This record gives sequence, C-alpha cells and structure tokens, in this order.
Amino acid sequence: MSQCRVLDGVVVAKAIRDDLADRVTAVRLALGRPPALGIILVGDDPASAVYVRGKVKSGADSGLTVDLIRLPASTPLEAVLAEVRRLNASPIHDAILVQSPLPAAMGPHAETTVFETIDPAKDADGFSPVNVGRLVQNRATLRSCTPAGVMEMLKRSDIAVAGRRAVVIGRSDIVGKPMALMLLHANATVTICHSRTADLPAVAREADLLVVAIGRAGFVTRDFVKPGAVVIDVGMNQLTDAATVEAWYPPESKRRATFAKNGSLLVGDVDPRVEEVAGALTPVPGGVGPLTIAMLMNNTVVAAESRAR
Amino acid sequence: MSQCRVLDGVVVAKAIRDDLADRVTAVRLALGRPPALGIILVGDDPASAVYVRGKVKSGADSGLTVDLIRLPASTPLEAVLAEVRRLNASPIHDAILVQSPLPAAMGPHAETTVFETIDPAKDADGFSPVNVGRLVQNRATLRSCTPAGVMEMLKRSDIAVAGRRAVVIGRSDIVGKPMALMLLHANATVTICHSRTADLPAVAREADLLVVAIGRAGFVTRDFVKPGAVVIDVGMNQLTDAATVEAWYPPESKRRATFAKNGSLLVGDVDPRVEEVAGALTPVPGGVGPLTIAMLMNNTVVAAESRAR
Repeated sequence: MSQCRVLDGVVVAKAIRDDLADRVTAVRLALGRPPALGIILVGDDPASAVYVRGKVKSGADSGLTVDLIRLPASTPLEAVLAEVRRLNASPIHDAILVQSPLPAAMGPHAETTVFETIDPAKDADGFSPVNVGRLVQNRATLRSCTPAGVMEMLKRSDIAVAGRRAVVIGRSDIVGKPMALMLLHANATVTICHSRTADLPAVAREADLLVVAIGRAGFVTRDFVKPGAVVIDVGMNQLTDAATVEAWYPPESKRRATFAKNGSLLVGDVDPRVEEVAGALTPVPGGVGPLTIAMLMNNTVVAAESRAR
Repeated sequence: MSQCRVLDGVVVAKAIRDDLADRVTAVRLALGRPPALGIILVGDDPASAVYVRGKVKSGADSGLTVDLIRLPASTPLEAVLAEVRRLNASPIHDAILVQSPLPAAMGPHAETTVFETIDPAKDADGFSPVNVGRLVQNRATLRSCTPAGVMEMLKRSDIAVAGRRAVVIGRSDIVGKPMALMLLHANATVTICHSRTADLPAVAREADLLVVAIGRAGFVTRDFVKPGAVVIDVGMNQLTDAATVEAWYPPESKRRATFAKNGSLLVGDVDPRVEEVAGALTPVPGGVGPLTIAMLMNNTVVAAESRAR
C-alpha cells in the first residue's frame, strides 16, 4: 500500500565515509599521521557510553585516530576545562568533542562554559559560539553534525529544498536552530515550531519538508503531514509502552519481536504510520543517527585539513 | 476610516534613552567617565555620513562619549584593522562600531574580517560571530541593534508575541536572521521568507506579526497582510518616482509636499496603504530607525557596565 520512500541513513553515511577516504590519506601525507579526534567523556551515563562507543568505532572504520579520555562523574568543571585546554594546545589532536550531557552536579552552565573554551578551530561538534555565529553568516566550516547530516541526506537523495516550505519542530541549539539556518541557506522558506506553537499539526502540514527534533516518541502523527511530504525524524527515544508497540507495528513484525526480547524499542519522534501519508521518511534507527556520526568524522577531517594547509 | 495603530518609534526610542540615564550615571561613578563609543567611518558615502551623524548626536543626547574616527576611502583594510585593534586595547573605549558599508575596493570579505577582529566585549553592533552565536544560544548581551529595537518596540507597545505567528521577509545577517531568532526566543512561531519563497503574499498573510526588511520601496502591499496584523517596516529607501508618490499619498498631504520640495522621499518596504488592512504599522521615517540608534546607545552602556563590574 505504502508508496513512501525510506531514506536509508546507513547507506548515505557509508557514502559520506567513503568520500572521506582520499582526504584522510591526504592528511596522513601532509601531517604524517591520520586526523585525530579527542573525546572527553565525563561520568557513567549509559546512553552517553553507547554514543561514544559508536563514535570511537566509526573513527576507527574511517582510519582516524580517536582518543577517548574518561573522567569520573565527580570531576570538577575546572578539571574538565583544563583537559579541554590541553587538547586545544595539543599538536596531535585536530578536533575535540566533550560528550553531552555533563553531570548535572557541574551546574547549569557547564556545557556552555565548555563550548566557550574549546578552540573554534578544533570544535568537532560545531557548538562553539564562534562557529554558531559563522553558521548564521553562512560561512562555517565546522557545523553541528546532526543538521549537517540531514542536509547531506537531502542532497545525496536528490530531494529539492530551494523554494520549498520546510518546517522544523524543535528549537534546540544543537538541532532545531542550526537545522532551520541550514535549510534557509539552501533557499527553503523555513518555519520553526515548538511547544508554544498554536495548532502545531496545521503548521506542520504546510511543510513540503518536515524535520522533527523534540524528543517525544511518536509525537508526529499522520495529521501533521501533508500527503507526499518528506519527513526527517531526528528523535531517539526508548519506547517501553506495549500498547503503543502493538498499535504501531503488525503482529509478525521484527520490531514487535525486538520489543518482546528487550522490553524497549528505539523509536523516533514520528509515528511510523506516517509512512501511509509521507512521500519519504527516515527510519529510526538507521536514519539520521548514522549521519550524525559520519558528519562528526567529516568535521574531524575538515579540522585536520585546515591544520595541514 | 483607518483603525490602524501607528507605532511611534520616536516615542519608544525616547523611553529607551530615558531608561539609560541612571545607568549612564552609574557608569560615570564606577569608571570616572561616561560610557564611550568609538565609531570608525571609512570613506565618503553620503548615506553613511548621515547615519553616523545621527549616532554621534544621539550619543551626546544620552550623555555618552562618541569618538568619530574618519579614515579616507583609500585606507587599506589592514590599517582599518589596526585602528580596530587600537580601540580593542583602549581603556577609554567601551564599544566600537565600524560603519557599513566599507568601500568596495577593500574586497568582499572586508566587513567579515572587521567583525572577526572587533573584541566581542566591545562589539556595539552585535555583528561579531561570537555574539551572533550567543544570540542563537539566547544568551547574548550585545545584540544586533535593529531587531533588538523591534523587540523593545513590541514589548513597550504591549504587543503579544508568544504563541503568535511571525513572518520575517528578508534574511540578512544584520536584520532578518537575528530578528527571526529573537522572535523565536520570545516564543513566536517564526517563518523566514526571501527572494526564493514561493507565493510570498500567501505566506506573509499567515502572519500575526509581519517584519519586512528587504530594501524595496513599497514591496509589501495590502495583499501581503492579514487583516489586523502588526506590520513592522524596517526598510529605508529613497523614492524618486512621482507616480508612486501620487498613488500612495493624498494630494494635500505633507508627504507630497516634501517630495515636491526634495525630489525624493524616504520610504519603507511597506506600501503605506497597508494601513487600511493592518492593525498596527511602524511609519517610515519615525518607526524602526530611531530604535536602532537607541539600541546602539543601549549596547554601549551594556558594554561599559560589564567593564565597570
């Protein structure tokens, strides 16, 4: 029944990584070593540990050096900043990432302080205010990985953006706002929605291209989607509600089996039944997630290239 | 006939300046001198000369020191940067402004280079990438003056923003993009339009609050405006076409007399007949223009306050 195109993030991420190979080789020739990323992981958050493991593995797959620096949850902010400064000054690190979230005990401004401390030239996540400002001015070289990955997905999937209406649901510093700016620079007419938006489904239905990044499992249902629209699901949520799983997936599906085995299921912000309406949809998992990591590798190579110059 | 409220920028600008008086006094006490702004004006562009004169006058009216540094049009970019660095290091200057546009002969990246060179703590215009990035992260203290002035106008005129649909026409680094971000942070649902937007009048009609900053005289006509919408006109254009003046203004009006006398008329991006549809409208002149200068004074005081701390 469904005519919905599945936008496979694993395939696109592989294409991005393949395109990096020659550039990694060029950096090796110029610097005498591969591009190198330093990751600082503070504390024992299990989700963070999973993400960081994925980044380390992807780095190895791409021929990069990834140094993982683990600090105990009790580390004072000043010691984290000292570690950042050490990597800023390190001649053998091209890029730096401090895994979010930092332990709550560090205080509400810890991440902001870290992002202000990372050398903008080594800012693998593109969260430094200098890089965010340059993004606004459409001249950033290091850009937030998730929205940059979405742009790569659209480009490599031949999905037109210019002149079309894009709606972004979610206004985070990491996804929503940079996503809106990148779509704007690609000549879309962009609307940003959030928790205070009145009649959100009606606004979302204006979209030819709908990007959802709010962190609420299955929040976007069929009535948010104009028939034929492209829907990009940035959400990553652990679904534990059996009734929802039964409503979403047919009895014999793999997804039901996975849920039965694990008691939870990684799902996005988009109800999977949106595929009955949408023209294209990114799955979760296997949609935007792999792109984020591929773009982190890309940023590391970009940072290394500018050192090699 | 018209029920349209005129949003008087001169009155609001005076209120902003009045609110600065006590803060200027506090800075005088703390630093032993008034807040001080250094303006660098390169070349002989007549419009720039007019703008700068307005800034110098407004500074004097507000009790600030304004140092005007004039450089010939032939000044090399490096010499302009040297002057910026001198003001960065100067203990008697709190804020710095380099008047745009710089002479075209300086090359296409001259302004960007200047904005990257100004100390973010002294960035009176809020154009430094660090301050733009902090604006995205909703923690900027020095923000682009024109959109910040529009926000002040809305606030002081008791015009609700939260939950309403705002449409910004124009995506410049100086007005359109920061305007969209400020409206977003005030909880509007924000759409940004531009030259590539399809069916612009229809998109504009979605707006409860329409901000126009594209630099085309009278571009926004009645069919762009939902009845009752608030329309903010950021345009400043010299109209020289007699037929347009006759179409816009009644025979005995002051505006026609001004045109007859001067051969041109300062007008906005909004056709004045929009007042037949809009619920509120900023005039040109006397709308957004005075707010921009008032917010420049505000930024100078903010920069001085942070030095006084």
